[in-house]
Amino acid sequence: MNKTYRQEDRLRKVALMLADKTSLGTMCHLCRSGEPLPVQSSIREIIDICRSVLFPGFYGDDDVTIYSLEYFIGIKCGKLHSLLVKQIAAGLALEQDCNASVDYASLECQASEIAAAFIEQLPQLRHLLHTDVQATYCGDPAAVTTEEVIFCYPGLKAIMNYRIAHALLSLGVPIIPRMISEMAHSETGIDIHPGATIGEFFSIDHGTGVVIGATAIIGNNVKLYQGVTLGAKSFDMDSDGNPIKGIPRHPIIGDNVVIYSNTSVLGRIRIGNNAVIGGNIWVTEDVADGEKLTQARANNILRFKQD
Amino acid sequence: MNKTYRQEDRLRKVALMLADKTSLGTMCHLCRSGEPLPVQSSIREIIDICRSVLFPGFYGDDDVTIYSLEYFIGIKCGKLHSLLVKQIAAGLALEQDCNASVDYASLECQASEIAAAFIEQLPQLRHLLHTDVQATYCGDPAAVTTEEVIFCYPGLKAIMNYRIAHALLSLGVPIIPRMISEMAHSETGIDIHPGATIGEFFSIDHGTGVVIGATAIIGNNVKLYQGVTLGAKSFDMDSDGNPIKGIPRHPIIGDNVVIYSNTSVLGRIRIGNNAVIGGNIWVTEDVADGEKLTQARANNILRFKQD
Amino acid sequence: MNKTYRQEDRLRKVALMLADKTSLGTMCHLCRSGEPLPVQSSIREIIDICRSVLFPGFYGDDDVTIYSLEYFIGIKCGKLHSLLVKQIAAGLALEQDCNASVDYASLECQASEIAAAFIEQLPQLRHLLHTDVQATYCGDPAAVTTEEVIFCYPGLKAIMNYRIAHALLSLGVPIIPRMISEMAHSETGIDIHPGATIGEFFSIDHGTGVVIGATAIIGNNVKLYQGVTLGAKSFDMDSDGNPIKGIPRHPIIGDNVVIYSNTSVLGRIRIGNNAVIGGNIWVTEDVADGEKLTQARANNILRFKQD
Amino acid sequence: MNKTYRQEDRLRKVALMLADKTSLGTMCHLCRSGEPLPVQSSIREIIDICRSVLFPGFYGDDDVTIYSLEYFIGIKCGKLHSLLVKQIAAGLALEQDCNASVDYASLECQASEIAAAFIEQLPQLRHLLHTDVQATYCGDPAAVTTEEVIFCYPGLKAIMNYRIAHALLSLGVPIIPRMISEMAHSETGIDIHPGATIGEFFSIDHGTGVVIGATAIIGNNVKLYQGVTLGAKSFDMDSDGNPIKGIPRHPIIGDNVVIYSNTSVLGRIRIGNNAVIGGNIWVTEDVADGEKLTQARANNILRFKQD
Amino acid sequence: MNKTYRQEDRLRKVALMLADKTSLGTMCHLCRSGEPLPVQSSIREIIDICRSVLFPGFYGDDDVTIYSLEYFIGIKCGKLHSLLVKQIAAGLALEQDCNASVDYASLECQASEIAAAFIEQLPQLRHLLHTDVQATYCGDPAAVTTEEVIFCYPGLKAIMNYRIAHALLSLGVPIIPRMISEMAHSETGIDIHPGATIGEFFSIDHGTGVVIGATAIIGNNVKLYQGVTLGAKSFDMDSDGNPIKGIPRHPIIGDNVVIYSNTSVLGRIRIGNNAVIGGNIWVTEDVADGEKLTQARANNILRFKQD
Amino acid sequence: MNKTYRQEDRLRKVALMLADKTSLGTMCHLCRSGEPLPVQSSIREIIDICRSVLFPGFYGDDDVTIYSLEYFIGIKCGKLHSLLVKQIAAGLALEQDCNASVDYASLECQASEIAAAFIEQLPQLRHLLHTDVQATYCGDPAAVTTEEVIFCYPGLKAIMNYRIAHALLSLGVPIIPRMISEMAHSETGIDIHPGATIGEFFSIDHGTGVVIGATAIIGNNVKLYQGVTLGAKSFDMDSDGNPIKGIPRHPIIGDNVVIYSNTSVLGRIRIGNNAVIGGNIWVTEDVADGEKLTQARANNILRFKQD
Repeated sequence: MNKTYRQEDRLRKVALMLADKTSLGTMCHLCRSGEPLPVQSSIREIIDICRSVLFPGFYGDDDVTIYSLEYFIGIKCGKLHSLLVKQIAAGLALEQDCNASVDYASLECQASEIAAAFIEQLPQLRHLLHTDVQATYCGDPAAVTTEEVIFCYPGLKAIMNYRIAHALLSLGVPIIPRMISEMAHSETGIDIHPGATIGEFFSIDHGTGVVIGATAIIGNNVKLYQGVTLGAKSFDMDSDGNPIKGIPRHPIIGDNVVIYSNTSVLGRIRIGNNAVIGGNIWVTEDVADGEKLTQARANNILRFKQD
Repeated sequence: MNKTYRQEDRLRKVALMLADKTSLGTMCHLCRSGEPLPVQSSIREIIDICRSVLFPGFYGDDDVTIYSLEYFIGIKCGKLHSLLVKQIAAGLALEQDCNASVDYASLECQASEIAAAFIEQLPQLRHLLHTDVQATYCGDPAAVTTEEVIFCYPGLKAIMNYRIAHALLSLGVPIIPRMISEMAHSETGIDIHPGATIGEFFSIDHGTGVVIGATAIIGNNVKLYQGVTLGAKSFDMDSDGNPIKGIPRHPIIGDNVVIYSNTSVLGRIRIGNNAVIGGNIWVTEDVADGEKLTQARANNILRFKQD
Repeated sequence: MNKTYRQEDRLRKVALMLADKTSLGTMCHLCRSGEPLPVQSSIREIIDICRSVLFPGFYGDDDVTIYSLEYFIGIKCGKLHSLLVKQIAAGLALEQDCNASVDYASLECQASEIAAAFIEQLPQLRHLLHTDVQATYCGDPAAVTTEEVIFCYPGLKAIMNYRIAHALLSLGVPIIPRMISEMAHSETGIDIHPGATIGEFFSIDHGTGVVIGATAIIGNNVKLYQGVTLGAKSFDMDSDGNPIKGIPRHPIIGDNVVIYSNTSVLGRIRIGNNAVIGGNIWVTEDVADGEKLTQARANNILRFKQD
Repeated sequence: MNKTYRQEDRLRKVALMLADKTSLGTMCHLCRSGEPLPVQSSIREIIDICRSVLFPGFYGDDDVTIYSLEYFIGIKCGKLHSLLVKQIAAGLALEQDCNASVDYASLECQASEIAAAFIEQLPQLRHLLHTDVQATYCGDPAAVTTEEVIFCYPGLKAIMNYRIAHALLSLGVPIIPRMISEMAHSETGIDIHPGATIGEFFSIDHGTGVVIGATAIIGNNVKLYQGVTLGAKSFDMDSDGNPIKGIPRHPIIGDNVVIYSNTSVLGRIRIGNNAVIGGNIWVTEDVADGEKLTQARANNILRFKQD
Repeated sequence: MNKTYRQEDRLRKVALMLADKTSLGTMCHLCRSGEPLPVQSSIREIIDICRSVLFPGFYGDDDVTIYSLEYFIGIKCGKLHSLLVKQIAAGLALEQDCNASVDYASLECQASEIAAAFIEQLPQLRHLLHTDVQATYCGDPAAVTTEEVIFCYPGLKAIMNYRIAHALLSLGVPIIPRMISEMAHSETGIDIHPGATIGEFFSIDHGTGVVIGATAIIGNNVKLYQGVTLGAKSFDMDSDGNPIKGIPRHPIIGDNVVIYSNTSVLGRIRIGNNAVIGGNIWVTEDVADGEKLTQARANNILRFKQD
Repeated sequence: MNKTYRQEDRLRKVALMLADKTSLGTMCHLCRSGEPLPVQSSIREIIDICRSVLFPGFYGDDDVTIYSLEYFIGIKCGKLHSLLVKQIAAGLALEQDCNASVDYASLECQASEIAAAFIEQLPQLRHLLHTDVQATYCGDPAAVTTEEVIFCYPGLKAIMNYRIAHALLSLGVPIIPRMISEMAHSETGIDIHPGATIGEFFSIDHGTGVVIGATAIIGNNVKLYQGVTLGAKSFDMDSDGNPIKGIPRHPIIGDNVVIYSNTSVLGRIRIGNNAVIGGNIWVTEDVADGEKLTQARANNILRFKQD
């Protein structure tokens, strides 16, 4: 009993320390009351609705029939709009100066406009994703049907999240796009920054470990395998020794390029159209149109008989 | 208000475009009414039940006791059968020609037989997985107990899903096996195609980024580390420039082979029994029995003093 | 009908085989009645509560306000304690000899003390994580705000789980720390063994495929990129050919070190302070203070024009 | 320990007795495999959907807006149809001779037709319920708004369930209508048999204890208070001493009748138009048009001073 | 197939009719966009929180300990306030003229003030309920402990809801109080209008069928049994034949009165202090202080031997 | 803002008052730490399991088939035992003197024995309930099938809870039986005290408002209608003016008795075998075997023509 009381006192003391505002710094979000933070579960729901509207019948547990298709999409678009308004407004509020007072109603108004503009891009997003499904199906001998691609390919899921996140970022939405791309990263191991620019007929096979940086530019009909990094080689520092944000530092990939597994392409270099980059290599210089790079296998493996 | 109405009109217009059947193509699953698609959450439940029946007490929240063990397994097998019947039938229906009418009752009948045959393989699956647990425990100095292996090792989870998916694929079940292997891929970063053939005492350590292709063949007592790819080197194209599906294109790995992290073994080559393949290398040619390959470290690293 | 009955008989037969105790071996946890196993969902809840107490307002769905902050943290600490007591006691019980009888009440007493001691470390954990947030924000030109780091960076999540798991392991808690690190591994693709020792201002970018072994030691202000392995080169075998557990076998990394993507650092070597290790290389020997290693690109890539 | 085992044996023995088919009799529903029983939770969902479609915005958690009203009702009607088909088919199957084999597909076909016919009556049901809302609002000085009537009046909820159940019973649906009326009974204490016939502008105030028998007929603009029974006086027995089912045995109530609290009206008698029946009385004979009955208070109360 | 299509057309037609605005009248709540209706589930949560704060440890699933009591109540009061603000504002909005535009922000401001004022009455409400618990325990020979009273007595639950609802109504909250009293009515069969005025030490035994009207006034230490109605005898009509709202029309009950089961007390009469009213009688005239009324049993029962 | 802060201060002040231990008295359950109170939701689950085991296939959502019946009942009995142990132990603890320290382990031991003894009575309970189903079906011309009785009759649900609660009370379980009977009361409006003694072939029609007191004794083949009270007439007071607990004060009802709606039978009187008691009357004296009582209708109704 005494022991129990002593433990309770210890807990009380810790609780007090943890609630001490001076210990919180930037680790706590309480600066303005009333105004919400973006919510993971809502953003997940936004993605689920986008998927169910873009690929009706494939995503979403609802039984969509010919009877209900139009109602279904109508309801989902309405729900999507109201979810987006809340999350976008929360994102916009987060961006504000923490000490200023926030006109939340006007942020919601702005968010409502952005949400509608995003939803208007869904038909175009579906068209783009259709090209990605085609490219994935045609490029993989193991893919039996397009249904299998839609159901089972992590690459497609990551691309879907990327295309949604990219559209939101282009409309000026803060933080939410990164949350969306990180969700795909967690689900698939594929990390595409929403700032990247990617053409149509894009596909990624297996995908675990793929990283595509914020300023990368990718042409049409490009295919990546697992472990490919399109990264920065180094980044410029400001006078305080901190990296300068926003400078183009990732590669530009041409049309019809294939990059095989575990290869890193680094820096603001250009990979020409129709180039083929072999696996497991390290590319930091331009590659010409149609050029083909492979690992010089022979001279870096030691091969000997075990005892 | 006016603004609200205008936005509602915009949403209505988009909803109409998205419900327009001509825009849907293969992106929508409405071709036959009444007949369900495979459902992710049901397949997840199937895996959970398999795990709880194969490792009673470890998986599944139920408190299995000596009293309830037999009842528990009896209930789970019944539940497993009825879940499998629905999902297998849905998979079989998906495979049918989209324009033909489907005799769903006969598909369910076929699915019921397949489901029973699968369940009859569970004792054998448990035996195989037992060898995998042993191999994992013995092969890792960090593993403290076999319980730790069963609870915490992603490799074991991926192998479990693979063995289940492989058994279903061998019984002719379409698409479901791929959904099962992709679930493990998302959970563990390990991507084993259900078509691969894998012997007993198989283990994978850490595992993130491992890829095992559809036609790979792996012997007994093989161990892989994170980032290992057993992939295709290239694939034959048909006259239209599309890859020909179904041709053996992944490696054959002998017994007692170890392959260290981030190494790629590509093409229909043969890695002999007792071979050891070092990390971070790229293997596209046969390796003899007992041979050992390592990276020629010396000559591909530049080492210099920073300023 | 007959057919249905026949299938039911088949299921009954399999259920009997699966419940047969001789077939279960170590695959089943029934050895002692009444005493629970660690539960995944509870451990997940423990992590969620830790996150919500360390970063109030960012994690946890609750609306924390200035009014409720103290109450909120008080409630969470109490809840955390009672969840930890159960899981730690379950972990301690699992460690016991399976044939001995367990004094569960005394295990709970021990667990209660450990849980309180852990909670008392939370203020220090928050301080450490604060340094990690700073390091992540300053080290990535793509990071717009610290909020983005807290919300979206998988590296931070993995480090959070590691720091929690490491604290529990240091207090002598079995198995739970490994479950916690494996949760982060599944969520982020980053696998940090709770036994590793890691200094402050630690950051991991992208992170998929990172592996940090059980005996690794990492200094202050270290930064890793995706795919970096701090692993064992080989491990000593005992006379039965099994690896000897517990021997230091992973690298020691100095302060202010950067290791770029997909590089493996293997064995009990020492990477000196201020060293920079380039991407995609294989390091098995000591690196001096301030030294810089890069791949010798030129001589292992073949570059040719395609037909 | 021994004790635990002994208890497990006792439980096993009871379980065996409870599973013994000879002890089950009509207490168990296993006679035909595969074919479902009606499910309470589905029927509850059916009622919830009916309410949300009849009173959009008042019932159902969904935010119905002018934008979504049409989509909302479209989706709900589709969902309602598919839920009804399953439950009606289950009801039809239950009615079948237990030993005959059931053609479940043809029952579903029949159920689908009944469900569509029921849904076609919803506009008429809404019209009727509108009259009931009006009558309730106008008849109660405590009712502040019609919204209060729709939100708070148990009488309206019971009448809603009755009107739905009556429509289903008229279409030949077995058992489901009784389940629906019993749900209202449990929620409100008002027990209206779905077989009763009730005109428009019907209202019940407070309602607890109201019972309306299966063959009762009620005119337009009738109002009942709590505790009113419209019951049978006695029922004819067959030669075995069992009550003969299906004979008219409950009262016929004219238009514009009011019956005050706790009064019982029993037998196939006729209460004339515009009659007023006072509270707490026992009526077993016809009442003429416009007649008024009250309790003869004076002579059945003893009034004396307490000591 | 054709049949399916025909049914879909029928459903579409009904959906169109049900969404037709002219058919909706007052049956639909769409008049103003954006502004919510009161939500049943939130009001239920409000009641649950009030109960858990008034009787900590008895209501609410949370484990309240001496450690957590203060945190627990702090959190609950905060949560209660924010739930109340939303529901009260929704109630206030409902009261507004449907065609006027609503200044929702100012309604929320008003609601916030009312919610705080209500919460400030909770200590006084707990004191009152304490007297009710005492009265119930002392007045019923079947009550074994006060815990049994708090856990099991429907009378106490109904009184709790009444006291909460009455406090809200006194603060000018529309509709919510009625929803709260109707919840208790559904749960317990006891219908107490929130407008009634009830003293301390109030108890109701069994309670099913009790009705207490909106203008009733009840003194201290009063006890009612099941089926007691404190109702209106008749109500004045306006020139249109509608009942005039708001006129005192229910009885005034003095201190220390007991009213036995199934008795009706009707009209604006006065039951004197210390009166005892027997069961099953009909009282429409004043009863003096200390008077005792019982049914004149002898002359209204016919007693005869059956054949 | 200021306003917000002021409100927060008000809330803090109230929270402090509500957490003040001197204001809590018996309203709070914190006297002993660690030991749980009975939990409503667990008791509900206990009832649900009892129903599903007594009437397999009718209650419980599980699909019981001939295959799974034995497993199903085995699992449910195990689950029932462990739920009962917890709740019974909580009930036993509540009964203890609040200031004494409780040996909770020994209470659990005692509870485990009681739970097993209760489960052993389930076969007998099923037999009894079977007679109640038969009596209900045969006694009501509106009952179409026994399935309808099991699914829809509130009387049967109340009797089921009574028989379970009575068995537990007979085994010495405190408080839980009353919680179980109150659940049925809330669901059905039928309030049967678990202390009552009731024979076989018991039925209640409609049932709202039925009250059966703690010391009532009811023979075989008795039928009650809605609103019947078997109550106490008065109760003896002790020298402090409090009712003396535990004295027989409710009626004894013989075999084959019918009591019609809204009749009250009060005091320790005896209703003889085969008696028939009419509706709406007030019985406080013995009724002989075979006697029939009805209301003397003629002389207590005033009948006149309205203007």
